[in-house]
Amino acid sequence: MNNFEFYCPTRIVFGKGTIAKLPELIDKSKKILITYGGGSIKKNGVYEQVKNALEGYDVLEFGGIEPNPKYETLMKAVDIVKSEGIDFLLAVGGGSVLDGTKFIAAASKYYGEKDAYDYFMIEQNPVTDALPLADVITLPATGSEMNNGAVISRISTDEKLAFQWEPLYPQFSIIDPQVTFSLPVKQTVNGIVDTFVHVMEQYCTYDVNSPLQDDWALGILRTLIKEAPKVIANPDDYGARANVFWCATCGLNYWISLGVPQDWATHMIGHELTAFYGIDHGQSLAIIEPRLLRNQKVSKSKKLAKLAREVFGVNEPVDLKAADIAVDKIETFFNSLGMKTRLSDYDINAEEAAQKIRGRFAKRGTALGEKGAIDAEAAYDIVKAS
Amino acid sequence: MNNFEFYCPTRIVFGKGTIAKLPELIDKSKKILITYGGGSIKKNGVYEQVKNALEGYDVLEFGGIEPNPKYETLMKAVDIVKSEGIDFLLAVGGGSVLDGTKFIAAASKYYGEKDAYDYFMIEQNPVTDALPLADVITLPATGSEMNNGAVISRISTDEKLAFQWEPLYPQFSIIDPQVTFSLPVKQTVNGIVDTFVHVMEQYCTYDVNSPLQDDWALGILRTLIKEAPKVIANPDDYGARANVFWCATCGLNYWISLGVPQDWATHMIGHELTAFYGIDHGQSLAIIEPRLLRNQKVSKSKKLAKLAREVFGVNEPVDLKAADIAVDKIETFFNSLGMKTRLSDYDINAEEAAQKIRGRFAKRGTALGEKGAIDAEAAYDIVKAS
Repeated sequence: MNNFEFYCPTRIVFGKGTIAKLPELIDKSKKILITYGGGSIKKNGVYEQVKNALEGYDVLEFGGIEPNPKYETLMKAVDIVKSEGIDFLLAVGGGSVLDGTKFIAAASKYYGEKDAYDYFMIEQNPVTDALPLADVITLPATGSEMNNGAVISRISTDEKLAFQWEPLYPQFSIIDPQVTFSLPVKQTVNGIVDTFVHVMEQYCTYDVNSPLQDDWALGILRTLIKEAPKVIANPDDYGARANVFWCATCGLNYWISLGVPQDWATHMIGHELTAFYGIDHGQSLAIIEPRLLRNQKVSKSKKLAKLAREVFGVNEPVDLKAADIAVDKIETFFNSLGMKTRLSDYDINAEEAAQKIRGRFAKRGTALGEKGAIDAEAAYDIVKAS
Repeated sequence: MNNFEFYCPTRIVFGKGTIAKLPELIDKSKKILITYGGGSIKKNGVYEQVKNALEGYDVLEFGGIEPNPKYETLMKAVDIVKSEGIDFLLAVGGGSVLDGTKFIAAASKYYGEKDAYDYFMIEQNPVTDALPLADVITLPATGSEMNNGAVISRISTDEKLAFQWEPLYPQFSIIDPQVTFSLPVKQTVNGIVDTFVHVMEQYCTYDVNSPLQDDWALGILRTLIKEAPKVIANPDDYGARANVFWCATCGLNYWISLGVPQDWATHMIGHELTAFYGIDHGQSLAIIEPRLLRNQKVSKSKKLAKLAREVFGVNEPVDLKAADIAVDKIETFFNSLGMKTRLSDYDINAEEAAQKIRGRFAKRGTALGEKGAIDAEAAYDIVKAS
């Protein structure tokens, strides 16, 4: 395996009734800004649990962080942090709320003249200081609760870019799988696909003699494939919800990617689809992933064949054939959850989308994937075939 | 799965040439005490690498920490820390050196009147403060490099007890698998057995619907079984050494035990064998584990059968029969590495050992294992059968 460095100081508090532990986790002296999204936490009881747990704390609120959190929205929270002297951010919601809160944490400590999106997201200047942040995570999907990354969009330029720095690790993340009982099916499925593709981005590259990392990556896929149908069939199945949530967290807490090459091309192309057409992140991945794997089948054949055999039990000795079967089975798995996997399912013209993305990648000189093999032309082919 | 909390702030720096990174990891202002064992680091080049990396630092040394580190020895280091104003401990060696250094870190901040062994190990008073510590770990075995536990012996009373507290996490651990090329075969094998049994202690209990944790535990066993023969056959095989080391770290960094019941009876009985007869820790585990699994076969049958099928590829539908095969295969695996698994192989009288351990457990009211089923009588049976 390759050399690696790993550091994750986030405390995970996992299980039933864990929101009540907030007072053990945040110092009483803190002035807290609770950040949240469209208000679902006020319907499913999470908001009430958080407020009850934080009785006696000095708390302000900032709602309205969108899916694919927007720079324009987040800067309003930064203004509140600065004017009100907030010294602790508590994100209550899904990965978008948490990602947005990571950006707020960084931008609240930034006093430069450039706008914070240009400074952090375009120029990728390091975040050396950030406001302490933590979360009550309500959606198993992004893994943001145990990593130091975030993806932030800007409306004015149709951009969606990622950043990743140590000060952005949450101090703690509370994961109570019960809060996912009331999730709409669509969000549950989006999260499962997101998790699945996170694992693929880290596993499905080329072999560097990392058998434990590979086995663990496939272990997440095996678990997801078994547990996902249970949460669709019975949304109140605590055990299955807990397993799906833990898969999501482990899908992007870096444990499976230590010392191995990574891909992330599906995400990068998917982000463009979301930026241009506003489709959900999970949907964009489900559309692109099968086509990207097919496009890169030769270079990924060893890993895809291993996946076919060790996850789907395929008995095919020829790697390229087994790889083909793996891609089919992945798309079938997505479809089995009710996830549609074609651009036409979302009324998006493939030719137009392919051209738009080719144009942007060509301008940026993009070369994606573990070997930099996915340039503007390859991206065109992948999107066109979708 | 059960509720759990997880926190591990240790930075892992893994790979070739990583000892040279020490100056990036320790502040120049620190006064460092390097702790080490019997001096093998002076023969294999590790000491020299560390000293070179720390050129310009204020460094003292404390050597002579034994396998199964002794309270009596460690307190001499505590005297040095206190008299010399040491403010950073750097353990350079295996798990015993690191465990011992964790005790030094705790005892150096303890100013009470009781002796530190009684206070921390017998009474299990919490460690609320400890000197910062880190390590260059040279032996894949204990996993101490990524956990907050330590096992400390006291000569005067033949005791060997464990403690585990958050301030005992290393700040960082440097893992360069190259340093294991020169390990004696015996130590390599001890470490592999130790890792294997760590995984068993966390996996082989009863089912709590934790499929990911179970899959990952078995993933470590699968990897070990493939990689261990390679390091025995070719001690300089970097890839295999790296995989074995990462298995050892992941065998006890708690990732596979989150939300699941744990056993640890093999370790507790093994510790007594080491305390009474001075045999290696790995040897004690190899002797006890097969007998303990056989003794507890009925209650562990589901997990043992799963292991038989998913690690050893056994095609036996009846759980109890598959469990028996699993135990045989585990002992065969240990033997295949050259590890002897019977008390008689070490000239220890089974009846005498069984009586001694029964006596001590009876006095302490011991009830070990995930269900507390291993009392003094069961321990007698297990040791007698060994």
